[in-house]
Amino acid sequence: MKIDGRDYRALWQEGQTIQFIDQRKLPYSLEIYTARTVDDIAYAIKDMVVRGAPAIGAAAAYGMALGQKNPEKSADLLRATRPTANDLFYAIDYMTQAINKKHDAYNAAATYAETIIARCKKIGENGEKLIKNSMNILTHCNAGALATIDHGTALAPLRKAHQNNKKIFVYVDETRPRLQGLLTAWELYHEGIPHALIADNAAGYFMRKKDIDLVIVGADRIAKNGDFANKIGTYEKAVIAKENHIPFYVAAPASTFDLNLRDGSQIIIEERGRQELTDICGKSIMPEWVSVKNPAFDVTPKKYVTGYITENGIRKK
Amino acid sequence: MKIDGRDYRALWQEGQTIQFIDQRKLPYSLEIYTARTVDDIAYAIKDMVVRGAPAIGAAAAYGMALGQKNPEKSADLLRATRPTANDLFYAIDYMTQAINKKHDAYNAAATYAETIIARCKKIGENGEKLIKNSMNILTHCNAGALATIDHGTALAPLRKAHQNNKKIFVYVDETRPRLQGLLTAWELYHEGIPHALIADNAAGYFMRKKDIDLVIVGADRIAKNGDFANKIGTYEKAVIAKENHIPFYVAAPASTFDLNLRDGSQIIIEERGRQELTDICGKSIMPEWVSVKNPAFDVTPKKYVTGYITENGIRKK
Repeated sequence: MKIDGRDYRALWQEGQTIQFIDQRKLPYSLEIYTARTVDDIAYAIKDMVVRGAPAIGAAAAYGMALGQKNPEKSADLLRATRPTANDLFYAIDYMTQAINKKHDAYNAAATYAETIIARCKKIGENGEKLIKNSMNILTHCNAGALATIDHGTALAPLRKAHQNNKKIFVYVDETRPRLQGLLTAWELYHEGIPHALIADNAAGYFMRKKDIDLVIVGADRIAKNGDFANKIGTYEKAVIAKENHIPFYVAAPASTFDLNLRDGSQIIIEERGRQELTDICGKSIMPEWVSVKNPAFDVTPKKYVTGYITENGIRKK
Repeated sequence: MKIDGRDYRALWQEGQTIQFIDQRKLPYSLEIYTARTVDDIAYAIKDMVVRGAPAIGAAAAYGMALGQKNPEKSADLLRATRPTANDLFYAIDYMTQAINKKHDAYNAAATYAETIIARCKKIGENGEKLIKNSMNILTHCNAGALATIDHGTALAPLRKAHQNNKKIFVYVDETRPRLQGLLTAWELYHEGIPHALIADNAAGYFMRKKDIDLVIVGADRIAKNGDFANKIGTYEKAVIAKENHIPFYVAAPASTFDLNLRDGSQIIIEERGRQELTDICGKSIMPEWVSVKNPAFDVTPKKYVTGYITENGIRKK
């Protein structure tokens, strides 16, 4: 991804350290977080220095490389960070096998990361075909380069359409509680793609007005039958899109499909802390007495999905 | 409404001033805003010292009393404050007639306010019949005592059910961009009604889980055919409720019906400033370059409404 004219990735190796764009600081400032140990990586995943299922997978792969002297302990530590994204577990298993086979762990992690990047690039090429000139597209959360090392999943087709000089406009759900829509706005701003941030509540308004032609979101985990988990609020957007006859696509690497899960009811939903709702920019916006519930993801049944954009093509449901 | 054991209203007359609970300061602190002129009232409505269609109506009625020496100019000033709520225009017309007939303007405004309060009390009694013991109820925005001088519209049945010792739990949408859900949480907290604030994105998650048995919202304007305008996001909740077979009720005084409007397409939707999204508690949470769209209301077609709770009873659609 381009930031002020320079090429960046969400994370990269430098010697025996892993460097991350610190996503907790975005979009206010561009700061780099350096991980020197597997503990640093586990912290980065848990505290959301890095977020997005594919980027979490790559971070975990590098974490296994940093912690290769004790692969079982490293794997346990990393597995305990976040429960919903399939990529995390996939990457840990991949690296465990590589380490057991005495492969170079850094090389294996780099291969894992480059594979993700190549898949996202291909998702962009495949999904771009759905985008017609002058389309208005809604996206939720950040399924961008920040979430996937580069290109993005849901954002990859938009990047590609823009590169191909298609005129598009992107509606960006701000995505409470964590406002990851700001990360999407930040990526689009740096790419020069016209867009507007909206309250999550306003997506339905624009869909009903027919101001939105297409919805593309990412996925954290997709069950065998096509039900998928993604950032909280995705289910609402999917239902409203169907109600308004707007195509709704899920963009994700094929590895996001977890064939061990029969359907969405088997996906574990992470509940996160109250501070995500009550604090913004490290400052409390709600009194102490406010009690909250904060599920981080929801499951959208396959019946709301028009199709899945993967590196292998577009799979209609 | 009870606050720390004392009875309060959202606004009241003291001599020739009108006192308001300053809703811009809630739920952080309880401060009183004093209006001495019709300009002070217009400012209070426009800047949302007072909000909620019925309370805005009452504020405008008192505004006409304060500005009774020049009723036409006062009416123009007040009409220009906010475009969506029918009550505002209704109250101005009511007061113009009273002033033209040489009635005491303060008495007329007080009668107007007391009528609203009595209607809300009745809405509470009527709506309470829908609430069974152990129900979980979702509400959006603040259709509480703060929005209606006392009792509330959507909150009136909950207050009444709680008074009648029914055990209820309330899911409160935080209601971005302005977070009026905090006002609802504040009212419920002071009444001792169990509740949790949730991100607007999470309402669908809880509905799909069948954690929510009933949805009650207020309305700013209801067209002749039953389509209604309410805080942005209401449409989303209504669609998701229908999809999950959850009863969805609109609680509002009968005066909220605007029989001049054939259907919802004739309701004017107010677009508000970017600061509502980009600032919280007077502090910017988004960089300057972020571009936003901020519709303040949406229109929910009647087909998503199970029934309307008014002072006259429950009208099934």
